[in-house]
Amino acid sequence: MHITAAALAEAVHAGERRALARAITLIESTRADHRERAAELLERLMPLTGRSIRIGISGVPGVGKSTFIEALGMHVIDRGHRVAVLAVDPSSALSGGSILGDKTRMEELARRPEAFIRPSPAGGTLGGVARRTREAMLACEAAGFDVIIVETVGVGQSETAVAEMTDLFLLLLLPAGGDELQGIKRGIMELADLVLVNKADGDLAGAARRTVADYRHALHMLRPRSRNWTVPVEACSAHTGAGIPETWETIGRYRETLDASGELAARRAAQARTWMWSETTDNLVAALREHPAVRERLPELEAAVTEGRIPPTLAARRLLAAFLGEEPDSE
Amino acid sequence: MHITAAALAEAVHAGERRALARAITLIESTRADHRERAAELLERLMPLTGRSIRIGISGVPGVGKSTFIEALGMHVIDRGHRVAVLAVDPSSALSGGSILGDKTRMEELARRPEAFIRPSPAGGTLGGVARRTREAMLACEAAGFDVIIVETVGVGQSETAVAEMTDLFLLLLLPAGGDELQGIKRGIMELADLVLVNKADGDLAGAARRTVADYRHALHMLRPRSRNWTVPVEACSAHTGAGIPETWETIGRYRETLDASGELAARRAAQARTWMWSETTDNLVAALREHPAVRERLPELEAAVTEGRIPPTLAARRLLAAFLGEEPDSE
Repeated sequence: MHITAAALAEAVHAGERRALARAITLIESTRADHRERAAELLERLMPLTGRSIRIGISGVPGVGKSTFIEALGMHVIDRGHRVAVLAVDPSSALSGGSILGDKTRMEELARRPEAFIRPSPAGGTLGGVARRTREAMLACEAAGFDVIIVETVGVGQSETAVAEMTDLFLLLLLPAGGDELQGIKRGIMELADLVLVNKADGDLAGAARRTVADYRHALHMLRPRSRNWTVPVEACSAHTGAGIPETWETIGRYRETLDASGELAARRAAQARTWMWSETTDNLVAALREHPAVRERLPELEAAVTEGRIPPTLAARRLLAAFLGEEPDSE
Repeated sequence: MHITAAALAEAVHAGERRALARAITLIESTRADHRERAAELLERLMPLTGRSIRIGISGVPGVGKSTFIEALGMHVIDRGHRVAVLAVDPSSALSGGSILGDKTRMEELARRPEAFIRPSPAGGTLGGVARRTREAMLACEAAGFDVIIVETVGVGQSETAVAEMTDLFLLLLLPAGGDELQGIKRGIMELADLVLVNKADGDLAGAARRTVADYRHALHMLRPRSRNWTVPVEACSAHTGAGIPETWETIGRYRETLDASGELAARRAAQARTWMWSETTDNLVAALREHPAVRERLPELEAAVTEGRIPPTLAARRLLAAFLGEEPDSE
């Protein structure tokens, strides 16, 4: 890649798909010179970002996430929007990309010029995957995509990461009764701005209605994320298309409500600050780990801590002293 | 406090209760010179630690945690042990100490010379409270307490923090049927090494039996923390004492099983390393925040990030450059 960050930023802004794909590849690279160029690229793209609605979507495997995203994406394109679909999936390092990696998924949406689908970057920690997805989201916005969908599987803390980078967190559920309620982690329910029971068609229509009632009841007991928004629980069928237009209307209503109250802007500002600090922390720890004096002392200190010879707090002080070039504590 | 760390360490080792209380007060202090002295104290105490069984106990308010801890503590004392009870409760900053703070709780246990009860340190983040509790635990071990109980209320991430500092995580449940299963966060169930349904007496005996059956069934679907230990679910009554001796036997069996497989030692070693790194990270971020060049640039950078003028990644790079005294990126 010999194109400059300035030229790449311009091509992304012009809406060139290949340039956008290239920009995201640069963003995903861990090479130091690439990271430098990606930072410059993002700085140039920054004034072009922020005008989309950012939608996080989660749900257990089998809930029909890709069918739902395809149905919603096609509906949204028909209404004149451009849709980018990204993913946060830290498990893809092991599975070789379990979500969005399968080319046969979202076939119809993938063929549309108004859509851009990017699989989860492979490898790395949740923090790393989340950072690259956040940056890819900004690149998509700069390229003119005004609806960004970030998909995640319910693995570990990935839902929290996705909720922290989006405006609206949509939880997809399966029609199921009574004690299967426990299948959803309570912390995840509290993240949801919109809950949809998918597969509300055919034999499952009745079960879906009961599930909607159950979750409306359950959500009453949880504190909502916003004072101005009561989390709706609705049924839909990505397969038949039932409830998809209504979902898009609900998303629009959500956006207007939180825009009017100033909450959307406040949430994004808080997300950006949180991101700055987590990025700062990650970089700091990486710098410490790479410092020659730390590398020299670390094996001994780690062994002493592991064997219970010194308290972890003391080891931490010594690591910091080594990093900052201060006198170590007297021994 | 003009006593030296060396003298205090000696008095703690001699089992003087006042010295132990004083040591923990020193550990809980945030003053820089106290932190320094606490570090020296802990280093001296370190060889005397590690010989206890560390038990984390959690459960929703009303489950009867203090009655249970008192019953278990009295039983354990009768068997010749010495018991220390600590708490992790980040909410105590607001409530003025919601757990263990009430002097009327555990009255019988509190009067025994073989027991030491310390309320949760007030104030601070979960990370801060957890660190001080970990250190207090080491001080108690050095003072000869061989059964350490760390209590927590089910607030936020405090259960995870307690599970990360103990050998065995005991979850207390109320007798309750069917769909109330959802009340327990799924992530918490996965932390449990032992589940007890308390209040299995009188009118609630039948409900307790059903709850035991329900949770045995539910736990089948979760991956246990250890390959060598199937998480038992039993009924007990802290009020009548039923099941308390059996609980202590189960804890003994757990300890033997995980000792034999080497898992207990491995878990403690991993806990110590994790603690070292979280401590290092906290100290690093604190050092960065206090650095004059960072303090000078931070308001501008934070405002630019909040307003979406620069990407958070770039702000993070500039903060790091300011901290490390490097040339800032060209602008």
